[in-house]
Amino acid sequence: METTKPHLQDDLGLGLQPVLHNQRVINRDGSANIRRLGTPFFRTADMYNALINLQWGYFNLMVFLAYVLINILFALIYVGLGIENLDGIKLQGTDFQHFMDAFFFSAQTISTVGYGHISPSGLATSFAAALESLIGLLSFALATGLLYGRFSRPSAKIRYSKNMVVAPYKDITGLMFRLANFRSNQLVEVEVSVSLTYNATVDGKSVRQFFPLELERKSIGLLTLSWTVVHPITEDSPLKNMDEEFLKANEAEFLVMLKAFDDNFSQTVHSRTSYTDEEVVWNAKFISAISRDESGVNLLELQKIDALEVL
Amino acid sequence: METTKPHLQDDLGLGLQPVLHNQRVINRDGSANIRRLGTPFFRTADMYNALINLQWGYFNLMVFLAYVLINILFALIYVGLGIENLDGIKLQGTDFQHFMDAFFFSAQTISTVGYGHISPSGLATSFAAALESLIGLLSFALATGLLYGRFSRPSAKIRYSKNMVVAPYKDITGLMFRLANFRSNQLVEVEVSVSLTYNATVDGKSVRQFFPLELERKSIGLLTLSWTVVHPITEDSPLKNMDEEFLKANEAEFLVMLKAFDDNFSQTVHSRTSYTDEEVVWNAKFISAISRDESGVNLLELQKIDALEVL
Amino acid sequence: METTKPHLQDDLGLGLQPVLHNQRVINRDGSANIRRLGTPFFRTADMYNALINLQWGYFNLMVFLAYVLINILFALIYVGLGIENLDGIKLQGTDFQHFMDAFFFSAQTISTVGYGHISPSGLATSFAAALESLIGLLSFALATGLLYGRFSRPSAKIRYSKNMVVAPYKDITGLMFRLANFRSNQLVEVEVSVSLTYNATVDGKSVRQFFPLELERKSIGLLTLSWTVVHPITEDSPLKNMDEEFLKANEAEFLVMLKAFDDNFSQTVHSRTSYTDEEVVWNAKFISAISRDESGVNLLELQKIDALEVL
Amino acid sequence: METTKPHLQDDLGLGLQPVLHNQRVINRDGSANIRRLGTPFFRTADMYNALINLQWGYFNLMVFLAYVLINILFALIYVGLGIENLDGIKLQGTDFQHFMDAFFFSAQTISTVGYGHISPSGLATSFAAALESLIGLLSFALATGLLYGRFSRPSAKIRYSKNMVVAPYKDITGLMFRLANFRSNQLVEVEVSVSLTYNATVDGKSVRQFFPLELERKSIGLLTLSWTVVHPITEDSPLKNMDEEFLKANEAEFLVMLKAFDDNFSQTVHSRTSYTDEEVVWNAKFISAISRDESGVNLLELQKIDALEVL
Repeated sequence: METTKPHLQDDLGLGLQPVLHNQRVINRDGSANIRRLGTPFFRTADMYNALINLQWGYFNLMVFLAYVLINILFALIYVGLGIENLDGIKLQGTDFQHFMDAFFFSAQTISTVGYGHISPSGLATSFAAALESLIGLLSFALATGLLYGRFSRPSAKIRYSKNMVVAPYKDITGLMFRLANFRSNQLVEVEVSVSLTYNATVDGKSVRQFFPLELERKSIGLLTLSWTVVHPITEDSPLKNMDEEFLKANEAEFLVMLKAFDDNFSQTVHSRTSYTDEEVVWNAKFISAISRDESGVNLLELQKIDALEVL
Repeated sequence: METTKPHLQDDLGLGLQPVLHNQRVINRDGSANIRRLGTPFFRTADMYNALINLQWGYFNLMVFLAYVLINILFALIYVGLGIENLDGIKLQGTDFQHFMDAFFFSAQTISTVGYGHISPSGLATSFAAALESLIGLLSFALATGLLYGRFSRPSAKIRYSKNMVVAPYKDITGLMFRLANFRSNQLVEVEVSVSLTYNATVDGKSVRQFFPLELERKSIGLLTLSWTVVHPITEDSPLKNMDEEFLKANEAEFLVMLKAFDDNFSQTVHSRTSYTDEEVVWNAKFISAISRDESGVNLLELQKIDALEVL
Repeated sequence: METTKPHLQDDLGLGLQPVLHNQRVINRDGSANIRRLGTPFFRTADMYNALINLQWGYFNLMVFLAYVLINILFALIYVGLGIENLDGIKLQGTDFQHFMDAFFFSAQTISTVGYGHISPSGLATSFAAALESLIGLLSFALATGLLYGRFSRPSAKIRYSKNMVVAPYKDITGLMFRLANFRSNQLVEVEVSVSLTYNATVDGKSVRQFFPLELERKSIGLLTLSWTVVHPITEDSPLKNMDEEFLKANEAEFLVMLKAFDDNFSQTVHSRTSYTDEEVVWNAKFISAISRDESGVNLLELQKIDALEVL
Repeated sequence: METTKPHLQDDLGLGLQPVLHNQRVINRDGSANIRRLGTPFFRTADMYNALINLQWGYFNLMVFLAYVLINILFALIYVGLGIENLDGIKLQGTDFQHFMDAFFFSAQTISTVGYGHISPSGLATSFAAALESLIGLLSFALATGLLYGRFSRPSAKIRYSKNMVVAPYKDITGLMFRLANFRSNQLVEVEVSVSLTYNATVDGKSVRQFFPLELERKSIGLLTLSWTVVHPITEDSPLKNMDEEFLKANEAEFLVMLKAFDDNFSQTVHSRTSYTDEEVVWNAKFISAISRDESGVNLLELQKIDALEVL
C-alpha cells in the first residue's frame, strides 16, 4: 500500500524511533509515555507540583500524619530534656503519661494555641519550645501556600470522547472526535491541533513519522457546548489511502493538543490526549449530546459525549 | 428579502441550532445561555471560583456561620467526652452553661488564642483539642487564600451602553455601541470583535448562522475614555439589506467579545456581552460622555454612557 | 506650513479633541491625564490596587493605626459589657486603668496571643472575644495577601531620559530618547512604540491627530544596557517639515508605550511615558552611559541616562 | 579571510562594543555579563526576588537568625522597661536569667503562643507586647508570601549540553547542541533562537556584530526527550567560511535563547545560555541519550546529555 505524505511534520519533540505494540507516544491523560533517568532526587518546584496535584484525601492524610509525627518528635525532645522542665505536668505519672503530656504540650506549642496550663522552664526546654513555635508558624505558612495553590491553579479539564469515529462528512468521510469542558469555567480562544503518527519504513529503516491533520475548524471563540473536531479525509489527507488494517499494522496513534484561555483564572491552559488505532471506530457517527430543555435553553449532556452509533 | 452572506463565520462554538424567541445566545453579563448536565457535583476549582465570586456580604456571613457551626460541633464533642476534662470549667453549672463553656473553649482553640483559663485534660479531650487547633490553622490558611484570591483576581468590568444604535456614519450609516472601563485600572491593547447571528433557512432547514462584522477600528492602545465601536454598514456588510423587522423576525443577536491587558494585574482579561434586536435603536446617535473640566482636563462621565438621542 | 500625513493613526483611545496649553495627553508617569465621574465609590479590586501601590511608610502606618483603632473599639465594647467579665483584671482601678486593661486584653485576643492572665467570662464578653479572634485571623489573612501582593507584583520600572533630542543620525537627523531598566530583574522581548500627537486643523475644525513614528528598531531581545530608541527623520517622517516652533504652537506631544516580559515574575509588563514639545532638545546628543570597568566588564551608569551635550 | 554577512542582526540590546578576551556577553547561567551603577540601594521587588532565589539552607538560616535577633531586641526592651513588669518571672534571678526570661517571653509573644506563665503588666510593657505580637503576625504574613513565592515560582531548568559540536549533518555539517528539561514539569511550545556574535572590523573600527543562525527547526510542541538543536552550515550560514581559529581570534560567542510554556504553572518561561569559541568541539557528534527500557518505553538518560564522540 502506498501512502501520500503531503505534510511531513516536525516530530513534536517526541523522537523518531518506531513504537512497539501497545506503547503509546502520548498517554490518554496527556502525559508523555517516557521515563527519565538522572533528574535530581529532590526539587522544590517538583515537590510543590506533586503536593498540588495530590488528591484531597491523601493531602489531608499527609498533613495529619506530619502533624502527629512532628509532635512525637518534639515530645521525645521534651522528655529527653527532662519532664520536670514542663511546669504544670503531673510529675508522679508514668512514662507514657509523661510522653502524652509532652505530646500535647508540643501540639499546643506548634499550633501556637499555648493554653499555658503546661509551660516550659529551664533554658533548653524554653529554647526548644521557642524553636517549635517558629517551625509551627513556618509550616502553616507553607500549608497556606499549598492550599492556595491547590485551589487557585488553573487547569483545563477537557472531557474527550472515548473514541474517534470515521463518519460521513459532507460528500466524503471525516475523522472526528468530540470534546467538552468538564468544569464550569469559561474557556475562550480554544485551539486544537491533531497529528497522525505511525511506524513508517524510510530508506529501509523503520522510523516514526508524524503528519499534521488539517481540521475543518482549528479554533472556536467560546467552548460552551461540545465541539466535534473534524478532519475531512480529502484527497490531500495522509489518511486518504489508509484503512483500519494499515493503522493497526503500523501502530498508528492520533495526538491531540488543545490550548485555551481560562476566563476565570485569566491564564492560558493546555490539554493533551491521544487515540490509538484501537480507539478509532470506522463507519460510526456521534449521537448529539445537545438538546433543548423545556424553556428553550440549550442543554449539554456531558455523559452523552461518548455516545456513538455504528452505521 | 434577500440577504448577502459575505463572510459566513465559524459558529464560535455556540451551536448551529436555531434560537427560540426570547432566548439569547450570550447573556448580557457575558455568560453563555446554556445548561450543562453531567458535570461533577463537586470540583475544587469550581468551588474556589464560586467562593471567589460570591458577594462580600454573603462571603462574610458564610465565614461567620462556618465558625459558629464548627464551634458548636466541637462543643458537642467536648461535652460528649466529659466536661470534667476541661480544667477550669465550673462543674456545678447547668448543661447549657457546660455547652457554652465548651463552645468558648472551642473558639479559643480553633482561633489558637488559647487563654488557658480553660484547658484540656485527659487523652481524648486533649487529642480533640490538638486536632481542632490543626483544623483551625488549615481553615484560616484556606481563608487567607480565598481572601487573597478575592482581592487579587483580575477581571474586566466593562460598562457597555445599554443600546446599540444605527446612526449616520460618514456618508452611510453605522451600527454603534459604546463602552468604557468601569474600574480605575489601566486597560491596554484592547481588542473588540462583533458578530451577528440569526436564524436563517439553508437548504430548507432552519439553522443558526454567524457573521463577523467589520469594525472601523478593532483595537485601541489605551482605554481611558469611552470607546464608540462602529460597524460601518457598507455594501459588504451583512446588515446592508436588513431592516428592523428582519432582525426581529429572525431572532437576531449581536455578540460582542472584548480582550484587553490589565496593566495593574499584568494579565489578559476578557469580557463579553450581547445585544438582541430589541436592544438596537434605529436612527439614533449617542450623546458625548466626554467634556472638559474647568482646568482643561478631559472628563469622562460614566453615567452618560447610555445617553442617546433619537434622530 | 504644510505637514505631510503619511500614516494617520488610530487615536489610541485618547480622544480627538484638541489639547489646551500645558495639558498632556499622557502624564510623565504613564497615567492618562483625564478625570472620570460616575465610577463606583468603592470597588474591592480598586482598593486592593490602592493598598498595593501605597508607599511602605504609609502602608505600615495604616496597619498600625487600624490595629490601635480596632483595639480601642473592642476595649470600649468590653468596658461596656462590664469590666467584671474580664477575669484577672484589677477591679479597684480607675476608669482609665479599666480601659487600658480592656485594650490590652483586646490586643492579646485579636493577635491570638492570649496569655490568659486576663480571660473572658460571661456569655456576652466571651462571645465578643470569640468574634474578635475571628476578625483578627481574617484581618491577618488579608494582611498576608496584601503583603504578598506588594512584594510579588511584577511591574516595569523603566528609567526614561528626561529629554528627547533631535541629533544627527547617519546622514540625516533622528529623534531619540534613552531608556534603561531601573530594577535588577531581567526584561526580555522589549517592544517600544512612539506616536506624535498635536492639534491640527482639519476641514476648519481643530482636532487632535496622532501619527505613529517609525523606529530604527522596535524591539530588543534583552534589556541589559541602556537602549537609545531612534526615530530617523526621513522623507516619510511626519516630523520632516516640522520645527521647534511648529511643535510648540500645536501642543505637540510624543507618546511612548513599552511592553516587555519580566523574566523574574514570568509575566508581561507595560510602561508608558510622554515628552512634550518643551522636553525635546534640538541639536543635541546623548553622552554614552556605558563604559567598561577595570576587569573589562560592561558598566552601565544609570545616573548618566539624562546626560546630553548640545551641539 | 572573508566572512559573509547574510543577516546582520539587531544587537539584542547587548551593545556594539567589542568584547575583551575571556569576557562573555551572556554568562552560562543566562545572566548578562554587565555591571550597573546607580540602581537604587533598596527596592522591594528586588529584595523579594533575592529572597525567592536564595538557597533553602541560607533562607532557613536567615529566618532563624532574624527570629533570634528580634527576640534579643525585644528582650532588651522588656529588661529596659523593668523586669518587674513581667508577671510570673523570678525577680530574684541574675541579670542573665532576667534577660533569658524576657527573651522567652518575647518568643512566646511574637509567635503568638502566649502560654501566659509570664504576662505583661504596666502600660509600657503591655504596649511593647501588643506591638510585638503585631510585628510577629506581619512577619509571618511576609514569611507566608515568601514561602509561597519560593514554591510556586515557575522557572525553566533547562539542561544544556556542556559543548556545541560541529558534526556531519545530511550532506554538509551542522553546529549542534543538545538540551533537555531538567524538571518533571511539562514544557510545551518550546522555541529556541541562536545568534553568533564576534568582534568584527567595520570601517576600520572594531565593533561587536550579531548574526542570527537559521535552525533546522525553531520550535517543538512538547519537550519530553532531549532536543538536538541544529544550525545547518549551508552556503547562507554566517559560519560558512569560519574555522576554529577565526572564532577564537574574534572572541566568538553563540547566544542561545529559549522560550516555553510551563504546563504545570500555566506560564511562559524563558531560559538563556551561551557557548564561547572554546566550548565548541569541531568534528564531534553527540552520543544518543535516548534508549528503550525493558518494557519498550522510551528512556531519557539526562546524565548522558553532554556525551560526545570525537570523529
